[in-house]
Amino acid sequence: MANFSKVSVGQDARTELHDKLSLTGAEISINDLPAGGSVPFVHAHKDNEEIYGVLAGKGRFVIDGEDVEATAGDWIRVAPAGKRQVFAAEDAGIRYVCIQVKKDSLDGYTADDAVIEA
Amino acid sequence: MANFSKVSVGQDARTELHDKLSLTGAEISINDLPAGGSVPFVHAHKDNEEIYGVLAGKGRFVIDGEDVEATAGDWIRVAPAGKRQVFAAEDAGIRYVCIQVKKDSLDGYTADDAVIEA
Repeated sequence: MANFSKVSVGQDARTELHDKLSLTGAEISINDLPAGGSVPFVHAHKDNEEIYGVLAGKGRFVIDGEDVEATAGDWIRVAPAGKRQVFAAEDAGIRYVCIQVKKDSLDGYTADDAVIEA
Repeated sequence: MANFSKVSVGQDARTELHDKLSLTGAEISINDLPAGGSVPFVHAHKDNEEIYGVLAGKGRFVIDGEDVEATAGDWIRVAPAGKRQVFAAEDAGIRYVCIQVKKDSLDGYTADDAVIEA
């Protein structure tokens, strides 16, 4: 079996990569909210850390009741217990990636995990 | 301690988020290669799965000797054993995120891990 898989993500409101790419260590979603839109609920997690990266546009993350403004290039980690909701700006949509991983699951990484070819 | 942390990523050649955001389940890097540039080595991993997302521009991933063309919106999973090297196109740079997670570390996710607020 090939050591890789690939998918092209278009402009859908939400694309989930776990099943499309056969991921085993993360769920990753690409999300678009139109200007004035929001995820329609507040949520937290049991075991999973989430990392949000704003790819385009701007908006606001409300985390434990605190407003966190975010624009393209901003990256935000939210601990499992953080109660979060994502809003697009009133005058601009927001496109973001959400990376969901199990907290405390990473051991060695980069130089400690890499095998460099000669 | 707050349940979140945030960082703004600029146009540096490489920004690593693990320490900046106190990540516990992933290392995430944002990378820029200029037109004609490449990561200067081939590498694989011992335990970690990597997911690459092309944020802008275009290039080519060589995985186990196979050319995989990639442009903005493409996402690629590489298994730990995959021998990989990233190249920008000759006529365009590439900006991509690399998400490094431990293989097989994710248990429940999304609906199975979420706690929805009333």
